[in-house]
Amino acid sequence: MKKPAWVIDKERARRASAAETIWLFGLHAVRDALENPRRDRRRLVVTRNALDRLEAAVRSAGITPEVVDARRFADVVPIGADSVHQGAALEVRPLDWGRVADLCIAGEGRPLVVLLDRVTDPHNVGAILRSAEVFGARAVIAPRHHSAPETGALAKTASGALERQPYLRVTNLAEAMEELQRAGYILLGLDGAGEVDLAQALTECAGRPVGLVLGAEGPGLREKTRDTCDRIARIPAAGPFGSLNVSNAAAVALYAASVGR
Amino acid sequence: MKKPAWVIDKERARRASAAETIWLFGLHAVRDALENPRRDRRRLVVTRNALDRLEAAVRSAGITPEVVDARRFADVVPIGADSVHQGAALEVRPLDWGRVADLCIAGEGRPLVVLLDRVTDPHNVGAILRSAEVFGARAVIAPRHHSAPETGALAKTASGALERQPYLRVTNLAEAMEELQRAGYILLGLDGAGEVDLAQALTECAGRPVGLVLGAEGPGLREKTRDTCDRIARIPAAGPFGSLNVSNAAAVALYAASVGR
Repeated sequence: MKKPAWVIDKERARRASAAETIWLFGLHAVRDALENPRRDRRRLVVTRNALDRLEAAVRSAGITPEVVDARRFADVVPIGADSVHQGAALEVRPLDWGRVADLCIAGEGRPLVVLLDRVTDPHNVGAILRSAEVFGARAVIAPRHHSAPETGALAKTASGALERQPYLRVTNLAEAMEELQRAGYILLGLDGAGEVDLAQALTECAGRPVGLVLGAEGPGLREKTRDTCDRIARIPAAGPFGSLNVSNAAAVALYAASVGR
Repeated sequence: MKKPAWVIDKERARRASAAETIWLFGLHAVRDALENPRRDRRRLVVTRNALDRLEAAVRSAGITPEVVDARRFADVVPIGADSVHQGAALEVRPLDWGRVADLCIAGEGRPLVVLLDRVTDPHNVGAILRSAEVFGARAVIAPRHHSAPETGALAKTASGALERQPYLRVTNLAEAMEELQRAGYILLGLDGAGEVDLAQALTECAGRPVGLVLGAEGPGLREKTRDTCDRIARIPAAGPFGSLNVSNAAAVALYAASVGR
C-alpha cells in the first residue's frame, strides 16, 4: 500500500529537521559547546592557534579536530566573511530542550519564563537568553517561525547562555501561553501603553508563577498574543520620548520579577 | 616669530575637530536629525522614494536634498555596503552637549547619570542612550578615547535617542567622576562581584543624586574608575553562570534607580 502524501511530507520534514545543523564560531561559543555534554557535535574546524587555546575542552569532548590554515578557514567553514570566528568553528545539532510542560511546569527553580512574540533579531534574542539565565528564568519560549533561529550569531551574542538556558521554539505561541495559564502562570504582556505599572502588576501576582511576554520592536505584541495575556504592563518612563530596546525591556522585567518576590 | 610645534599641533587638532562630520543613515535616524534644531546639518542625500517619506522633515529643516538614484547611493555616500540606509543619509556635525557641570549639576530633572568606562561597541552605547532617555538620566558620560564615537551605526541603534539624550565624551573620566562627587553625587560602580546588592545600595543613597558606572564586558571597570566609585554594587543573579550584556545591565540599573526613589 502506498503511503498517503501527508505521511510522506511529515517523514520528509522529520528527516530535514534531523539533518539540520548549525555552525557555532568564536572561541567562547565553541568552548561552551564543547563543554556541554548535551550537545550533539559533528565537526570541529580550528586553526593551530585556536586549538592550543581550546585544548582542554577538545580533549574532554573527545572530538577529533580538523586543523586548517588560518587563510583557508573561510573555504572550509560556511560562515560569513566578516564573522569574528577567531579560528574556531564547531558544527552542531540544535539543542533539544523538550516540552513546555516539562521545563516550565514540572521544572525546578523559580517559576519565571519569558515569551517572545516574533523577535527575529539574533542579537536581541542572544542578549535575552543571557538575562534569562542570570535571573533564573526556566525557559525562553518563542514561535518556531518568525523567531531568531539558533545560529552562530545568536550563540555568540548569548555568550554561553545558549548552552545552558532553554530556548524553546513552539508551533503555536498562544497555545503554549494557554498551557502555562492552565498550570497557574500569570502572563504579563509588556507594552509602553500598558494599563498598569510593571512593579504594580508584579505585586498583584506575588507568589504566582509569572510569564513575561514581549513583542518585536515596531509591531509589538500581535493581537492574539496580547489578548491571551492576563495583564498588559508598562515599564514606567520619565518622559514622552524614546522606547527601550527589546532585550533591555526583557532585562528590566526579569530583574523586577526576580527581586519582587 | 615661528609658532612652537605644540601650538601648531593644537591648532591642527582643533581644525580637524571642527571639520569632523559623520553620516547618519536610515529613515528613522535621518528624520530625527532633521527635526532636531540643535543639529548642524551639511548634506542630505536621498532617493526619490526616501524623499517622499521624509518630505515634511526636509521642509521644516530647510535643507536642499540631493536626490540620487538608488543604485548610485553607495557611490555618493561613504557608508558600508551592508548598511541598511533605506535611501537616506545625512551628513552632520556631532552634537555639542556642553559641560558636565551644566548638564548634570545645574541641569533640570532627576539627578541620575550613567558613566561608561571604555564601552566601545556602538550597539551597546546606542541601546544605553535609549534606556537613559526612557529613565530620564541627565547624561551618559564616557571618556573621549576608547569609547564608541557618535557614528551612523550608533545613531541607528539609539533609534532617535542620540538627538535627545546627552552623550558627553570627556577627556578624563575619573576627573568627571570627582566633579560629580563634589556636587553631591553618589557613584555606584556595577560589578558582578560587587560588595552590596544594587537595590540595597540604592536604598542607602535615597534622595541623593546617583551616578551609575559601568565598564566594558570582559575588562570591566578600570582600577582607577573602580577606586573612584563610592560603592561597588552587584545585580543579584540566580546562579553562578552567565552575565548580563552591558546595555542590559545599564537598563536594569537605570530602572532600579528610577523606581527606587
